[in-house]
Amino acid sequence: MGNKKVAVVGAGLVGSLMAVLLAKKGMQVDVFERRPDLRKAKAIGGRSINLALSNRGFKALSLAGFDKEIRDVSIPMYGRQMHDVEGNLTYQAYGKEKEAIYSVSRGQLNQKLMNLADDYENVKYRFDRACEDIDLSKNEITFNNSSTHGKEYFSYDQIFGADGAFSAVRGVLQKTPMFNYSQEYLPHGYKELSFPANADGTHCFDKNCLHIWPRGEFMMIALPNLDGSFTVTLFFPMKGEISFESLDTEEKVLDFFNKTFPDAVPYMPTLVEDFFSNPTSTLVTVRCSPWNYEDKVMLLGDASHAVVPFYGQGLNSGLEDCTVFFEMYEKHKGNVHALFEAFSEQRVPDGNAIADLALYNYIEMRDLAGDKDFLLRKKIERKFSDLYPDKWMPLYSQVTFSHIRYSEALAAGNRQRKIMDEVMEMDSIHDQWDDQKVIDKILSLVE
Amino acid sequence: MGNKKVAVVGAGLVGSLMAVLLAKKGMQVDVFERRPDLRKAKAIGGRSINLALSNRGFKALSLAGFDKEIRDVSIPMYGRQMHDVEGNLTYQAYGKEKEAIYSVSRGQLNQKLMNLADDYENVKYRFDRACEDIDLSKNEITFNNSSTHGKEYFSYDQIFGADGAFSAVRGVLQKTPMFNYSQEYLPHGYKELSFPANADGTHCFDKNCLHIWPRGEFMMIALPNLDGSFTVTLFFPMKGEISFESLDTEEKVLDFFNKTFPDAVPYMPTLVEDFFSNPTSTLVTVRCSPWNYEDKVMLLGDASHAVVPFYGQGLNSGLEDCTVFFEMYEKHKGNVHALFEAFSEQRVPDGNAIADLALYNYIEMRDLAGDKDFLLRKKIERKFSDLYPDKWMPLYSQVTFSHIRYSEALAAGNRQRKIMDEVMEMDSIHDQWDDQKVIDKILSLVE
Repeated sequence: MGNKKVAVVGAGLVGSLMAVLLAKKGMQVDVFERRPDLRKAKAIGGRSINLALSNRGFKALSLAGFDKEIRDVSIPMYGRQMHDVEGNLTYQAYGKEKEAIYSVSRGQLNQKLMNLADDYENVKYRFDRACEDIDLSKNEITFNNSSTHGKEYFSYDQIFGADGAFSAVRGVLQKTPMFNYSQEYLPHGYKELSFPANADGTHCFDKNCLHIWPRGEFMMIALPNLDGSFTVTLFFPMKGEISFESLDTEEKVLDFFNKTFPDAVPYMPTLVEDFFSNPTSTLVTVRCSPWNYEDKVMLLGDASHAVVPFYGQGLNSGLEDCTVFFEMYEKHKGNVHALFEAFSEQRVPDGNAIADLALYNYIEMRDLAGDKDFLLRKKIERKFSDLYPDKWMPLYSQVTFSHIRYSEALAAGNRQRKIMDEVMEMDSIHDQWDDQKVIDKILSLVE
Repeated sequence: MGNKKVAVVGAGLVGSLMAVLLAKKGMQVDVFERRPDLRKAKAIGGRSINLALSNRGFKALSLAGFDKEIRDVSIPMYGRQMHDVEGNLTYQAYGKEKEAIYSVSRGQLNQKLMNLADDYENVKYRFDRACEDIDLSKNEITFNNSSTHGKEYFSYDQIFGADGAFSAVRGVLQKTPMFNYSQEYLPHGYKELSFPANADGTHCFDKNCLHIWPRGEFMMIALPNLDGSFTVTLFFPMKGEISFESLDTEEKVLDFFNKTFPDAVPYMPTLVEDFFSNPTSTLVTVRCSPWNYEDKVMLLGDASHAVVPFYGQGLNSGLEDCTVFFEMYEKHKGNVHALFEAFSEQRVPDGNAIADLALYNYIEMRDLAGDKDFLLRKKIERKFSDLYPDKWMPLYSQVTFSHIRYSEALAAGNRQRKIMDEVMEMDSIHDQWDDQKVIDKILSLVE
């Protein structure tokens, strides 16, 4: 693919990293973005959950030599801090000591990646251009230029669609024969709220945790920002008795929050304004197959696998697409069609697996994170894993701290769950969980 | 909805019947079709499997007083005739005596329905108009007029999208929040072939059967036409060792057919020409939810639930949409929004159920229809059902000869399968299937 002319549609995080990595291979890269240059725009809040970068994301950034710079502007979160209705806290480490996920600002990360890409002479950003259609016979993209209101036409050897969950590039592939596609919404949506920084610039809760208020049918979470604030997100039913629809007056909102999240309300001075002025967003899972069209188009990131945010892997999986693509690129040098086919074939099951894992994790976070059986289960797993790290890596660690394929992690997680189901059936497991017989039981089951 | 101005997008079978039934309620109905008037066009073959109309379809046609006229131009098929590789025949009745599915020409049925609709003063057909977009805020449809090449804009109180599996109306809804959608292709496609009429105008095989050549990974079927011919359809892998892709020379095609369908080849004088000139079509399952957008748009037929053709229920389920809609219309008179919501809520699970049933039936037809265990299972079921019709209606009969909701039929079918699994485990069931103990066993399990 060297010396080729390629397009990346979408100047988001995955698109911009892809542009850098393609440029490093010597390609001429045009990056198209339907919005204006976000580096010149005012900050737009209220829609985007904080990102939690973890190992897969950092590995991809390291291909661009960029992981350290990002780690410096992010905040490590070493575990979940659960808040119950009485304000009692329960802490659960994510992994081993020093293993953390990293809270980072989507906007800041995106700007930095765009600046990095802009430094390459062979990368050109073209903003205000919305992809309208692609003529696949000649790989010609039609753009609508929102400044001139005219149409523009560009042809490329390859087109990378990194244009998000509502991808226009994918919309074109959707009309080709044998393209499987699904979009599935949760009955829950989300809304961003905020805990501002304390007067002295510090955080109102421990900044090195991801905070969760699990409440069964719904939950609230908070991720720290560098400026002392937290970005807070309420995941909540769209409709029904207790829902975004039903909380329709200031009084109802305050009442509900005071009853449900009493330890958080004192830190939410603009709760009511935020609740009514910030948009309610939906949560969609997108799957498709194949991710490529011949040797012409490849989908990446949310465009091919949009997942709900509950495993913190949406961006990480999109960035990992880049890692995997360039690993395979080396093997398939010169044969773009074989490369595209092989990448899609390998990566589709991983996209589906992280989609499933993320949907499952919503139940875990909102429903189980406060549950005694669940916490004991995690404790036993952790103990066994510490004793026999070669025999047991917890599912969360496989997904978050390893580079094991998501599909393999999912399969391993299913095997582990069955084993732990048996362990939790043992007599007096809550009293005797620390006994050697529990370890022996697991040993007998894993082997 | 009386006195309202409504649009039906798509002048196919479901669209045209819907137009008649809406017109009967006094509405002004515009029917839009992207193709020219098929009554003025030459016959277009090679793409559309013969239709098998059954009870659900006839019930809907009877709402338009049209069932008898259609029955007169159709051929009843009372059972499946299976052809094995040696040319041996096995017959399996579809239901009780006189119960049949009816082979009918799609084109003829469509023309008759269009003529019927045209007789209403308040129905107007507008051909050569492809739906391009809908502005949902004012329910205004943009059409591309293929004669003038200009755009046309029409607004309606309600819009019914009956524009098929690749529905443009559904494409608009797909972009609205919380619209769940999936399209899933089988790895198999199909191609139409033909057995012409005998010289004396008779059929080369029994015309009152649906003929099947089940061959495990694939199959061929034939449905009779009034003129003495059969329309033959080969369902076959798209790619792979034995596939549409691999049969790429005349010799390979003839070789394959001679080996695989030896009793059929003598009746296929144009086999090779047909094989290479007729298109290979794909088999898609489409599901979505909801089927409505507020009180503005409603999807019907393949637009909301395209299914694979193996249960012969694609058209029947689409026509049943009309039956169910007008049953509910009476209950919700005056409240279109409530009507649309209730219809979608009731009908979505039925659309999903017939999609699942049709996918399952492909396995049954191509794989099991020649299997001894399977045939015995059907024989025992039939015997029990004849003895205790109130306790057991075979799944096929529920789907084909009843008006039981598809979702209930699917659930009942799953219960029945579990019972028959137990029955088939009985000792020497192949020798003793006719014993009273088998009946007693089933009686003990159904109650």
